[in-house]
Amino acid sequence: MAPSAQILPTSASDEKYANVKWEELGFGFYRTDNMYVATCKYGESFQEGSIVPYADFQISPCSAVLNYGQAYRTEDDRIMLFRPDQNALRLQSGAQRLCMPYPSVDQFVSAVKKVVIANKKWIPPPGRGTLYIRPILFGSGPILGSFPVPEYTFTVFACPVGRYHKDNVGLNLKIEDKFRRAFPSGTGGVKSITNYSPVWITLAEAKAQGFSDVLFLDAATGKNIEELFASNVFIVKGNVVSTPEISGTILPGVTRNSIIELTRDFGYKVKERVVPVEDLLDADEVFCTGTAAIVTTIASVTFKGTKTGFKTGDKTLAAELFATLTDIQMGRVEDKKGWTVELTDATTPGLKL
Amino acid sequence: MAPSAQILPTSASDEKYANVKWEELGFGFYRTDNMYVATCKYGESFQEGSIVPYADFQISPCSAVLNYGQAYRTEDDRIMLFRPDQNALRLQSGAQRLCMPYPSVDQFVSAVKKVVIANKKWIPPPGRGTLYIRPILFGSGPILGSFPVPEYTFTVFACPVGRYHKDNVGLNLKIEDKFRRAFPSGTGGVKSITNYSPVWITLAEAKAQGFSDVLFLDAATGKNIEELFASNVFIVKGNVVSTPEISGTILPGVTRNSIIELTRDFGYKVKERVVPVEDLLDADEVFCTGTAAIVTTIASVTFKGTKTGFKTGDKTLAAELFATLTDIQMGRVEDKKGWTVELTDATTPGLKL
Repeated sequence: MAPSAQILPTSASDEKYANVKWEELGFGFYRTDNMYVATCKYGESFQEGSIVPYADFQISPCSAVLNYGQAYRTEDDRIMLFRPDQNALRLQSGAQRLCMPYPSVDQFVSAVKKVVIANKKWIPPPGRGTLYIRPILFGSGPILGSFPVPEYTFTVFACPVGRYHKDNVGLNLKIEDKFRRAFPSGTGGVKSITNYSPVWITLAEAKAQGFSDVLFLDAATGKNIEELFASNVFIVKGNVVSTPEISGTILPGVTRNSIIELTRDFGYKVKERVVPVEDLLDADEVFCTGTAAIVTTIASVTFKGTKTGFKTGDKTLAAELFATLTDIQMGRVEDKKGWTVELTDATTPGLKL
Repeated sequence: MAPSAQILPTSASDEKYANVKWEELGFGFYRTDNMYVATCKYGESFQEGSIVPYADFQISPCSAVLNYGQAYRTEDDRIMLFRPDQNALRLQSGAQRLCMPYPSVDQFVSAVKKVVIANKKWIPPPGRGTLYIRPILFGSGPILGSFPVPEYTFTVFACPVGRYHKDNVGLNLKIEDKFRRAFPSGTGGVKSITNYSPVWITLAEAKAQGFSDVLFLDAATGKNIEELFASNVFIVKGNVVSTPEISGTILPGVTRNSIIELTRDFGYKVKERVVPVEDLLDADEVFCTGTAAIVTTIASVTFKGTKTGFKTGDKTLAAELFATLTDIQMGRVEDKKGWTVELTDATTPGLKL
């Protein structure tokens, strides 16, 4: 098979930054220098893996659990991670749902740190983006039937990214009225590839129609909002902020969880509940959250051909939350939450920054 | 990453058969000699690929469409395929559902033939099993977001197998009452990995409880039977044979389709319809069908803790169908259906048997 990896310029060894046009950085794939790989036999536990040069995987047809995180370079040149332990826990719950062994939280966080350090020249300058970190767990051993897979691989790679949504003035969503993303007893509540490829068709159609993204309704009734293709949704009405409750069909986003806490700090009442489409259409303001989306304003939704607009701009709660969250992530304000992990020689024993 | 492929003895070049203990052949993975690989860029069409030595894939995290077929060695040493065109069409419909480009029917069938010829020493002796053929289509290009994938790979590999279910006296199924396999607007109607990993957990639990396999109920109502983990289901009551209708949530099995036709030839009335659990429990006989399962009798189902038994043995319709279908597949009787494709120098232009 022909090599499939896109070969992009990698850094010379004595540069502070990799050879990337940071000002043009979008949300796409760049090949970086190193990745982390560990393997695990069925019935065994993960042993410590190692950093290896980035390469395509050698795998058998696989199932994957995907979990995302990011590293940030602060203005005073410190390197920060945001809640990597929460991503580790989510990978564990996803692995349990899909009957896979999984690394410990410590191993997960250590692997993420190693990848960041091994690729530290790829962390964008402050304000230019983040180093997106993708830990993956998949069945890598050969198997003809479906279960159990004899070997699993846990790997982490990283890639510099800009904003996920380019529409800074607010997203225009299509409320998907035919295809559902997840159903009760399915895998909608874990970060798994099984949640994405089945709804590519809806995202492709919506983008062809000029929409920014898709908002899915619940499969059981088709009446309540669930989430976007890859982010959680919040609606604001007066002093009350509502977001779909965690019921097994939406992803328990780490950013979602952080935003709920910050919104409460701002004095709003936050309700995790069933959110009917009607409540969304009646909202003052709507936004979405995610590792990649951070906090992104939604300017409009279109449901059954009718478009409804919402408040956008600098005076929105979304703008306030975005500023507060990124201030914490970028180390511009003190982190009173204990959400950030600074990579120092002290916090990364055995690793040299 | 450490090599993950299981290295099993391959054949010396002058043997008729590979170095396999055919009498011990079960349904598991063996590494054979060669495979077929073609790649396709996004927005382009598949060009002809090539036969290469079997190796693990080099891929990025991927989504896959899986489609199965088999090659048989007849008693007079001819090599037969069973309805490869139908598998090609099913791969195409799966690719459309998952927004992937796909090979033409001719390319698909040609690729299958090439793999069989390149691995012909791995086709089991008559009665010992079949050469199981796995064509796979997956997004192989690197991408950080979810859509579109910049490159796709179509590959075919093959592996000798015995029977899928070892329970020759009949399967004992658990009717799964909590997890669903597929839901309306999902991918249950195409052969995709997204249909399997979400229900590994149920299969693992059922097997741990001593069951042979799982029978799933529909997600919308939980009242009607759909299919087993990887095969279709039929119920017999008097002179009427019923099987769940194709509605987008069950796989349109090629064996299912063939069995419907043979059953009608036998003089039974066949109904493709909604099949409530109650009708199953009231049946005289139950069986499942699939490329790997062929036709397998179901001895019992257990629903909410209550076990119901069905007719088994040589005098069942399942036994009669199994004999007739395998007679056709193995070339023991004339194929009046036009289902089999014999591999000869005439039917495989450019390939030398």
